[in-house]
Amino acid sequence: MATKIKDLDGLRRSRCAAANTLDLIGDKWSLLVIRDMLYGKRTYGELLDSPEGIPTNILAERLKRLEQAGIIVSTAYQERPVRYAYTLSAKGAAMGDILLALVRWGKEHIPGTLVLKATKPGATQSKPARRAKAPRAD
Amino acid sequence: MATKIKDLDGLRRSRCAAANTLDLIGDKWSLLVIRDMLYGKRTYGELLDSPEGIPTNILAERLKRLEQAGIIVSTAYQERPVRYAYTLSAKGAAMGDILLALVRWGKEHIPGTLVLKATKPGATQSKPARRAKAPRAD
Repeated sequence: MATKIKDLDGLRRSRCAAANTLDLIGDKWSLLVIRDMLYGKRTYGELLDSPEGIPTNILAERLKRLEQAGIIVSTAYQERPVRYAYTLSAKGAAMGDILLALVRWGKEHIPGTLVLKATKPGATQSKPARRAKAPRAD
Repeated sequence: MATKIKDLDGLRRSRCAAANTLDLIGDKWSLLVIRDMLYGKRTYGELLDSPEGIPTNILAERLKRLEQAGIIVSTAYQERPVRYAYTLSAKGAAMGDILLALVRWGKEHIPGTLVLKATKPGATQSKPARRAKAPRAD
């Protein structure tokens, strides 16, 4: 680990698999967006309605970044105005294991934390993307 | 998940265990510092000597923050000038599971990544803390 690796083939900081994963989702919000999508949320409005209150500019930026990384896929579900639904790719859904590890650690080491249960997305949102999925992740 | 939780008992964004864990280590560097400590690095100089080239100001800030969170423990191993050795608490060592999940995801989904093998800490370093490195900020 102490030696510098010179030829990174386009990787950013090192060849370390953990470092490269953190380059994609190493921030306070990306994995929460992925959590919400694992729970079945799909529209921008649904994702915005997180208990953490993600700021709209951060959500927009993260969705763009996660899509560029192939973690999520967007599909227009409406035209004029165009609106997108977001779903996890297989690669994105595989991040569930990372979330699970975070949840386990938090539950064990941070008093007062919970495994949040999903509410039915759409319950708080009248329009689009009526999802019904009873996901339980996180 | 759609409802806001009002009484957070001092938690920051929600009661979600994942969100609270991310409040502690949701960035590009903290888990890499923890990775290096899991590999046996202990001194500031050893930790600075990561393949990712952690900038010294970021390392100092993260060590302080991780110590405040009870994830690492510092002990003075030398006086005049005082120098500290850092070790993971049990709570910190338990973050190994999070790292493992990141590593697994990265190895599977990011071509060219590896599970970096630890080198013996100190092998590349005679005196702690003398670092000259081309920092790369985040």
